[in-house]
Amino acid sequence: MEVTRRDLLKGSAALIVAASTGRAVSAADDPLPSWNEGSSKKTILDFVQRTTTRGSADFVSVEQRIATFDQDGTLWVEHPMYTQVVYCLERVPAVVKAKPELANVEPFQTVLTGNREAIAKLPVPDLLKVLAATLTGMSVDQFEAETNKWLDEARDPRWKRKFTDLTYAPMLEVLTFMRTKGYKTYIVTGGGQDFVRQYAEKTYGIPVEQVVGTAGGTTFGYDKTGKPFLTKDPKLLLNDNNAGKPEGIHMMIGRRPFAAFGNSTGDRQMLEYAKAGKGERLAMLLLHDDAEREYAYGPAQGLPDSRIGTFTQALYDEAKSKGWVVISMKNDWKRVLS
Amino acid sequence: MEVTRRDLLKGSAALIVAASTGRAVSAADDPLPSWNEGSSKKTILDFVQRTTTRGSADFVSVEQRIATFDQDGTLWVEHPMYTQVVYCLERVPAVVKAKPELANVEPFQTVLTGNREAIAKLPVPDLLKVLAATLTGMSVDQFEAETNKWLDEARDPRWKRKFTDLTYAPMLEVLTFMRTKGYKTYIVTGGGQDFVRQYAEKTYGIPVEQVVGTAGGTTFGYDKTGKPFLTKDPKLLLNDNNAGKPEGIHMMIGRRPFAAFGNSTGDRQMLEYAKAGKGERLAMLLLHDDAEREYAYGPAQGLPDSRIGTFTQALYDEAKSKGWVVISMKNDWKRVLS
Repeated sequence: MEVTRRDLLKGSAALIVAASTGRAVSAADDPLPSWNEGSSKKTILDFVQRTTTRGSADFVSVEQRIATFDQDGTLWVEHPMYTQVVYCLERVPAVVKAKPELANVEPFQTVLTGNREAIAKLPVPDLLKVLAATLTGMSVDQFEAETNKWLDEARDPRWKRKFTDLTYAPMLEVLTFMRTKGYKTYIVTGGGQDFVRQYAEKTYGIPVEQVVGTAGGTTFGYDKTGKPFLTKDPKLLLNDNNAGKPEGIHMMIGRRPFAAFGNSTGDRQMLEYAKAGKGERLAMLLLHDDAEREYAYGPAQGLPDSRIGTFTQALYDEAKSKGWVVISMKNDWKRVLS
Repeated sequence: MEVTRRDLLKGSAALIVAASTGRAVSAADDPLPSWNEGSSKKTILDFVQRTTTRGSADFVSVEQRIATFDQDGTLWVEHPMYTQVVYCLERVPAVVKAKPELANVEPFQTVLTGNREAIAKLPVPDLLKVLAATLTGMSVDQFEAETNKWLDEARDPRWKRKFTDLTYAPMLEVLTFMRTKGYKTYIVTGGGQDFVRQYAEKTYGIPVEQVVGTAGGTTFGYDKTGKPFLTKDPKLLLNDNNAGKPEGIHMMIGRRPFAAFGNSTGDRQMLEYAKAGKGERLAMLLLHDDAEREYAYGPAQGLPDSRIGTFTQALYDEAKSKGWVVISMKNDWKRVLS
């Protein structure tokens, strides 16, 4: 049976039947068909089984079933550059067209050359200037129109596919499986909350109100006709990375997750926070060790850090010592992209 | 038939049957039995009917059905003082016991006298000092324990009931009715998000993740055993009043509400924002004009502003000119408290 994106998102009929009748999942209605048999897959199935079966010592009531997922590198491809950063860089010509005085000012001058090596070397404060210029200063509606147009037209250079197609089939299966079992699935991303919200529903089946991300403020005002609208501000309200992830989860959700998935040091505190709660908790990290089907990166893979969160040896050691599961893309996944 | 709190929250069997079979609501299964017949009640019923009936020109898809409710003075009694302010004032002795040096420092000295008139005259910056001292500087878990103990023990001086019992029966019916019709109901309050989250589920049937309120930051850290925890900070992240309401809605929900309910100038921008969206939208304001069964207040009632949001003449005029519905507690409600 060919599993389509729609199946992955909506859950196959077999999966729904299995869930509603409560019978054990057999090979024929495996909720995680893109996973190889092994301890990673078994851990997910066991965790969900134990926390959602009434009478189990680890049973969790439906309203408490919260699962949080990092996005970049956990649900979709983040290498060699975060998709949102690609968006911001490609928006620069339009920004400079509207404000020609920026053409000879750094970092815009460098970005306009299109020289990838030079762009990759821009210092972080310069990169933040590009993000501020391309993500703020417009109305929420205008931002929505611009990002949706880009997401529709832009293509990843390696796979020649839309960026929103570069999701991991095994992770879409986990999202659907957990939702079928009553879990509320959240994205908790270092990426921009407003950016990810544009495609989260269609791409992951996650509604906008379940996207927690790095967020700037907005300012309420009125247009000339007296109609109210919101403008996106450069003021940072939530830096949803590292300690900001559990802080953001408290702010936006108000419950400690029972399961958390990540792939880098930026997810460490979220996983620690989830695991520190009472009862059975699940913490998983995805290791990018598949140079053929996707990428192998991070210091352990001998590839230089390219501004993206890294899976360090220290993180690996913490995972092993605390009972977090490290998912090997190469060994645990039958299929990578959806 | 005596309608209990449980009925109000969970929806009566009749209501659920009516919703699932799609037949017209008759007097026998009126979803709003605590409302007198009249234009306010009719407006709510018509709005919900039009936006949730497939084929209707005003049909709204389930994922977009967002309704936001102010809390103080809209869902429960706010007069003569916000419940959370009562909590903060009553916490002062415990705070001073832990930090005896505060006993001779204002505003704590005045609060400790228990002199209501003097306390009522404290300037706003002093009141904010009391809020900061009683709502921040402790762990999230400690705050939860303290507020729950107080909510369980404290009694309103007029009705001798728990504060969480002082909810409006007609509004609980609206919450339940809208949820039964697929609306996701949110509290959007100027009150403290963490405070309201302690009782929102039990009191209103609204889960913690659907409470948007004034929110301070938290700081992630570790205790001596290495266990992570969050500490409540005095740093303000969201002032969820006035323009802060639509800004908070964008931050926390990411969708424009189709229906919004409030009772004061602090709700004005939220109602404007809701009404400015495309399609059929509902904006309602509750007027406290029932001195017998509850209170009559605001400048229009000749009662001085007592630090609470006011229903000004300007707000009333805006409501009338923009087609917002003004609910008269005295005339529209058969029953007030639940």
